[in-house]
Amino acid sequence: MKSDNLILITNDDGIHSEGIKALIDVATQYGEVIVVGPDRGNSAKSHSVTLTEPVYLKETESIIGVDVYACTGTPVDAVKMAFSNVLPRRPDYIFSGINHGSNATINVLYSGTMAAALEGTTYNIPSVGFSLTDFSADADFEASKQYVSRIIANVMENGLPDYTALNVNIPNIAEESINGVKVCRQTMGYWNDGFEKRVHPAGFNYYWLTGTFHNQEPENTETDEWALENNYVAVVPVKIDFTNYSAMQQLKNWNYGK
Amino acid sequence: MKSDNLILITNDDGIHSEGIKALIDVATQYGEVIVVGPDRGNSAKSHSVTLTEPVYLKETESIIGVDVYACTGTPVDAVKMAFSNVLPRRPDYIFSGINHGSNATINVLYSGTMAAALEGTTYNIPSVGFSLTDFSADADFEASKQYVSRIIANVMENGLPDYTALNVNIPNIAEESINGVKVCRQTMGYWNDGFEKRVHPAGFNYYWLTGTFHNQEPENTETDEWALENNYVAVVPVKIDFTNYSAMQQLKNWNYGK
Repeated sequence: MKSDNLILITNDDGIHSEGIKALIDVATQYGEVIVVGPDRGNSAKSHSVTLTEPVYLKETESIIGVDVYACTGTPVDAVKMAFSNVLPRRPDYIFSGINHGSNATINVLYSGTMAAALEGTTYNIPSVGFSLTDFSADADFEASKQYVSRIIANVMENGLPDYTALNVNIPNIAEESINGVKVCRQTMGYWNDGFEKRVHPAGFNYYWLTGTFHNQEPENTETDEWALENNYVAVVPVKIDFTNYSAMQQLKNWNYGK
Repeated sequence: MKSDNLILITNDDGIHSEGIKALIDVATQYGEVIVVGPDRGNSAKSHSVTLTEPVYLKETESIIGVDVYACTGTPVDAVKMAFSNVLPRRPDYIFSGINHGSNATINVLYSGTMAAALEGTTYNIPSVGFSLTDFSADADFEASKQYVSRIIANVMENGLPDYTALNVNIPNIAEESINGVKVCRQTMGYWNDGFEKRVHPAGFNYYWLTGTFHNQEPENTETDEWALENNYVAVVPVKIDFTNYSAMQQLKNWNYGK
């Protein structure tokens, strides 16, 4: 299946993470891979880009024989940097991850991994974000590789709908325990979170963000969170058009006074 | 119309911007207003939150008699900080802006202003992001105030559909030139951008992000970009469920091998 595909790989955990190594290992079976990623952890950076500070780029040690470039910006900066200053041409595919930790549910809003994939989608390049439900730095990606490979093979064979990326989340369980792949929708819920106040040794206050996710529809078998909890790989097609079309008529009936 | 509404105002340009002052001025006609915003510019911070650095909060000088709190984090941090450490209760409305510069088209992906509104939407609080199509620090918000007021009045009278915020963009023209309000969908397009290389005085390279927006459907009268170019206030209902429902069946037909 190896072809003349040009594949850009990035992530939000930084180029030194275990997850990106696993993704590189799989993707090299499907084409030429170039990695342009953040030089350090950029979790929860969402779709942010760096406007008011300079960004730096350096070629660094290769991983499994693949050229790797590190950039000081965000994951979306890394994609833009790859396009303008690294890749010989527009890539055929963008794969992001494998993230250390779930990007299911509304985490797609906060995730740098998914933002990098969605950035590819703005150019209508087939893009996928992969995540494993294990936040630890030494997470074991072996079992997930087989599913990453199957999904890449499907994307290459079937393409993706226009302006649509995939949000793929893989449960952190033994390979034989995975029940297969389930195509889902994004679970509705919210973060029961807030900033916890601490007192600095010098006497002033500072705050850490902390919280837990509240699933508003735990029984719904169509959701990505249900799939993960029931040992399925969750695949959600996500789009960059945020318009709520079904709300438009209602808003057209409002009185705007002119 | 003034009532016991509790209104949270935030933005991404920081609490010292002219745009937030204009929004406060309008919103105080509709309820009790508390401002919790970034202490400096946070443009293009999208839905990012601050995980690995402490965040600081301070009460600062009031604006038009309204209590103002400044936070060192992102716009979404500011909303979360407001909920957990500032507001006496969950607010009834969240208004974000008025942004200096357009958040129409796919700018909704990058915008901190819209991310703050979408964060409110995760808790199903009616939330609106307002933007004026003028990036300059001394932009004139006078003409926009009347439309901000009409839209707030409509949101309070009619409510918003579940999990849906409004992305309101106002053309930077004289009030008498505005043709009214147009309910639109998000324009499809992409940023023709990239990082421009410069050489530091010390000899090493650094990069600045630069680019222009490419509108892929300039003739489409249903889009927010068309509305702005034709002197309408553009209102797009946007939702936090990114699922592309119409793509699900196609993906269910793929062969995942198990």
